[in-house]
Amino acid sequence: MRAHLLTIGDELLIGQTTNTNAAWLGERLSLMGVRVDRVVAMPDEDEAIRAELDRAYAEAPLVVTTGGLGPTHDDVTKTVVADYFERPLHTDEELLARVRRYYERRDRDMPEEVATLAQVPEGFALLENPVGTAAGLWYADTNDHGERLLAVLPGVPQEMKSIFSAAVQPRLEARADLQDVKHRTLLTTGIGESDLQATIGDLSPWLDDHLHLAYLPSTSGVRLRITAHGTNSEDARARIDSLEAVLRERAGRYIFGTGDDTLEGVLGTMLRERGLTVATAESATGGLIGHRLTNESGSSDYYLGSVVSYANTVKVHQLGVSAHDLREHGAVSEPVARQMARGVRSAIGADIGVSTTGIAGPTGGTEEKPVGTVWVGYADAETEHARRLHLTQDRHLNKELFATSALDMIRRQLRRKEANNP
Amino acid sequence: MRAHLLTIGDELLIGQTTNTNAAWLGERLSLMGVRVDRVVAMPDEDEAIRAELDRAYAEAPLVVTTGGLGPTHDDVTKTVVADYFERPLHTDEELLARVRRYYERRDRDMPEEVATLAQVPEGFALLENPVGTAAGLWYADTNDHGERLLAVLPGVPQEMKSIFSAAVQPRLEARADLQDVKHRTLLTTGIGESDLQATIGDLSPWLDDHLHLAYLPSTSGVRLRITAHGTNSEDARARIDSLEAVLRERAGRYIFGTGDDTLEGVLGTMLRERGLTVATAESATGGLIGHRLTNESGSSDYYLGSVVSYANTVKVHQLGVSAHDLREHGAVSEPVARQMARGVRSAIGADIGVSTTGIAGPTGGTEEKPVGTVWVGYADAETEHARRLHLTQDRHLNKELFATSALDMIRRQLRRKEANNP
Repeated sequence: MRAHLLTIGDELLIGQTTNTNAAWLGERLSLMGVRVDRVVAMPDEDEAIRAELDRAYAEAPLVVTTGGLGPTHDDVTKTVVADYFERPLHTDEELLARVRRYYERRDRDMPEEVATLAQVPEGFALLENPVGTAAGLWYADTNDHGERLLAVLPGVPQEMKSIFSAAVQPRLEARADLQDVKHRTLLTTGIGESDLQATIGDLSPWLDDHLHLAYLPSTSGVRLRITAHGTNSEDARARIDSLEAVLRERAGRYIFGTGDDTLEGVLGTMLRERGLTVATAESATGGLIGHRLTNESGSSDYYLGSVVSYANTVKVHQLGVSAHDLREHGAVSEPVARQMARGVRSAIGADIGVSTTGIAGPTGGTEEKPVGTVWVGYADAETEHARRLHLTQDRHLNKELFATSALDMIRRQLRRKEANNP
Repeated sequence: MRAHLLTIGDELLIGQTTNTNAAWLGERLSLMGVRVDRVVAMPDEDEAIRAELDRAYAEAPLVVTTGGLGPTHDDVTKTVVADYFERPLHTDEELLARVRRYYERRDRDMPEEVATLAQVPEGFALLENPVGTAAGLWYADTNDHGERLLAVLPGVPQEMKSIFSAAVQPRLEARADLQDVKHRTLLTTGIGESDLQATIGDLSPWLDDHLHLAYLPSTSGVRLRITAHGTNSEDARARIDSLEAVLRERAGRYIFGTGDDTLEGVLGTMLRERGLTVATAESATGGLIGHRLTNESGSSDYYLGSVVSYANTVKVHQLGVSAHDLREHGAVSEPVARQMARGVRSAIGADIGVSTTGIAGPTGGTEEKPVGTVWVGYADAETEHARRLHLTQDRHLNKELFATSALDMIRRQLRRKEANNP
């Protein structure tokens, strides 16, 4: 099945809003086996929307629109669509009552124009909006071009996503003409795309026209996406399982999770299961590791706190780093990284201490320690070590990658420990 | 002048890449007085690109393309464009030599297909790429539809932006038919859109068809964008100046900067100028304030470090918060916020201490202290105070807004001090 996405709203054309809806829908539809041929952004204007509907249905049976469903006079999508399919608008009393209650609960009068939210074109199915007031719409008919399917969704990303997942995806998946596609994504970190390819090596005995592997780089690591096409479900799952087993055998130490996992989420679960606590001593990352750990709800179960020792005096007084070693080896050095990790573990009373000391850039580099150099330290009751990395990105990305390395260092150490004490 | 943006690349359709190029170009062109009527994303396919060029030139004289300029066989934009305008491709020897040098400097052999990077359609101007190997192209002619202008840019955002700024923008600005538009953006924080509108009040004596004010909400605060149209430069500047003066008189305490300023950048400059240092005590923000302060290069001039006291034991032992007050008032309370700010200032030896203690959510709220409640504390040698805020966003946005409040508290305190001691 082919689809066009029509994203509606002046804010998309003047750069006030980045079209994240298009990327999200593109990924979701592609993963379902729908091929997205075009994405068009257009103003909230009758003529523009009609012209794009014409173009879309000449080439694809499925059109998904986003935006222009609000109650203000700028929001024209619903009236244009109703008119395009020659369907009169009726007020849905149940929906109107729901919108009224929404305002009542907030002790506010419902502005008159808001009643338009409850209008529905005749023959259109209403798609309930669990997180807002603008409902989505679904329509199907046939004309000279053949079948025409239409999903009309609001522009607010959270509302668009929840309506798509709850009501549009199931309608599409119920169709026999949707190709059977299965996916599984393995998440790696701590290795670049070309090194990962070399580590994994030749996969030709496992791959063919029905089974693909894609390397998808991102700032948190390379994602490995396995795609199985056009086979029946049982068979596809078995083939994905056997490819996954090969990937884990060859590159398992880099794989930290699957699907929508995050490194901090996976690590949090590992720490919670083992009843371990962690504290961080951050210089180059400036607090980012603590920030990422606390992005997980419930992180107080295992994260106690951090000392961000940007100034050397803080390294000495709060973390007990030797002033002599700071002078002798510099702040960006193995002994300082180890002492920071050890120091924060003991100061805060955590099971595990982890540290970063490095040069994020763009200034502060030397010949011996160029911008992008970082030492990541680790300490627990039994072990202590540090690792040097050299990265080549800008300040912001270097900080992200330093933090990722520190989080991954804890994850690998926990795995190593289990391999040694099975 | 009207424009269509044609963004080329399969990765835009399957959601692998969010179309940030379209947002950036949309904003830049709009600010120059070019009206962007359509943005289309399409696959790297000859037929699709030709069809979109036809549609675009039927409606707009200016087309800007991004993507598809690399050396691999997927990258077809240049050959399709040359063919569309019936221009043969020639090798530009100077460009070829430059590409060769690019590989030599990296001690790598130039792959054969890379030579296509040096091909230029006859009659096209070459736009040098200061940060990569794929040059941009510029073309102008007239046909039955009238004038046709074309800018062909690479898809890598950094390369696209630098070519646009250096070579496309000046070419467009040199044209007489480009409307004279001037902009100035004032950045506010610590106040919502509707409260800001109420504070600023009626501006009708200053505004008319030639002078507009837009309220643009974002996560760091509401931006106030002043736009002056179609007046000569001197006059436009004078009118913008007088509107800016009114806005500063009425809402000056919320305005922290202009244009591309960031709150942490503005605050950093204020601290550096005054020779003051800062330390942070973070609970709810988990390290985010330190992370944001250290996103500025050179922040070690004024930022000493943080104690992230996620666990109450860290509040007591590292920051000297009273265990009695923690029991009596809870961690999310005024006395604890004040003691955290005071404690980190003294522990780290900074001029200013700032703190956050709150409930980012989604769990942990109570009737008395719902999710989104935060106390922000401030301490210096002379003053100490704390402020309670209640926010209603999700965990990630709550953390961002807590951090923004803490940074802005320092900024306002520095301003207040100067107002009192002029």
